[in-house]
Amino acid sequence: MAHTSRNDSDLMARVKRIAGQVAAVERGLTDKAPCADILQLVAAVRGAVNGLMDEIIVEHLNEHVARPGLDDTERAAGAAELTTVIRRYSK
Amino acid sequence: MAHTSRNDSDLMARVKRIAGQVAAVERGLTDKAPCADILQLVAAVRGAVNGLMDEIIVEHLNEHVARPGLDDTERAAGAAELTTVIRRYSK
Amino acid sequence: MAHTSRNDSDLMARVKRIAGQVAAVERGLTDKAPCADILQLVAAVRGAVNGLMDEIIVEHLNEHVARPGLDDTERAAGAAELTTVIRRYSK
Amino acid sequence: MAHTSRNDSDLMARVKRIAGQVAAVERGLTDKAPCADILQLVAAVRGAVNGLMDEIIVEHLNEHVARPGLDDTERAAGAAELTTVIRRYSK
Repeated sequence: MAHTSRNDSDLMARVKRIAGQVAAVERGLTDKAPCADILQLVAAVRGAVNGLMDEIIVEHLNEHVARPGLDDTERAAGAAELTTVIRRYSK
Repeated sequence: MAHTSRNDSDLMARVKRIAGQVAAVERGLTDKAPCADILQLVAAVRGAVNGLMDEIIVEHLNEHVARPGLDDTERAAGAAELTTVIRRYSK
Repeated sequence: MAHTSRNDSDLMARVKRIAGQVAAVERGLTDKAPCADILQLVAAVRGAVNGLMDEIIVEHLNEHVARPGLDDTERAAGAAELTTVIRRYSK
Repeated sequence: MAHTSRNDSDLMARVKRIAGQVAAVERGLTDKAPCADILQLVAAVRGAVNGLMDEIIVEHLNEHVARPGLDDTERAAGAAELTTVIRRYSK
């Protein structure tokens, strides 16, 4: 199920931010920063990754299940795919 | 958004299983079982609770967003509520 | 590695609270409460279960790794068991 | 609590792998890949970040709590810091 109108600019901005946060962890290790500081940086990456995951799921919900104009078959397919995603990735 | 046809029997069976698992943790503490055994029991509760959460979200998806016969306004409201849930509880 | 002086009274109080929260979910389903309310109750169970898991890990850390009087062999064994627990249950 | 002998080479290798995985997500968005594929890439990042977090916690456990030669005060301080980390980041 490819995307035509997914809000990729917002998602891309989130990914670039995560890349920057990962670079900050790398610098922290290079500078021999204490564990607690490194952990805080890693926790920030984890939070941002969870946020990115949520937004992709929400985009999929709106694009492939809720969008007006979809027919019942398309909606059922979008809901089935979203169900698989929720069961796999929500942990 | 109350539920008329939610699959509560499946959800109730899951909740009763979780109650049984919590009772097993209680017995483990009473019997002074080692940490590793208690942790395994607690991890089983966590897994079951995550599973229960997923199924409630999936029920909401099917009942209030994907179900044929909903009009666009109902669908948008269902999607908005699900978006709030995903952002709040997926962590 | 059994426990002699684990703070089981605190852990037991947590488990009993969780049992009460699970019972609240059961009542919510019986009363046909809306998804959002049920999810909030389930999220409270999940938070309490995560908290319980943390406290068991912290107890193990203090009891089997950090406690004065342990010899190096006992400490290494406690740290090895805790390492297994962290890698398995921290997700 | 700075680190003198932390196994930074292993941690650095993990961070560089994560940076590569984040770059793969960026490429996926650029190439308009379907949600399911992007989610799989993001889930891989999340798994790797959780793994990195575990290893930093384990390093801290071995370096500042379990290591032979620490005195009781040093051990207690290491355990206190680890307790804070476990309670904050284990979710």
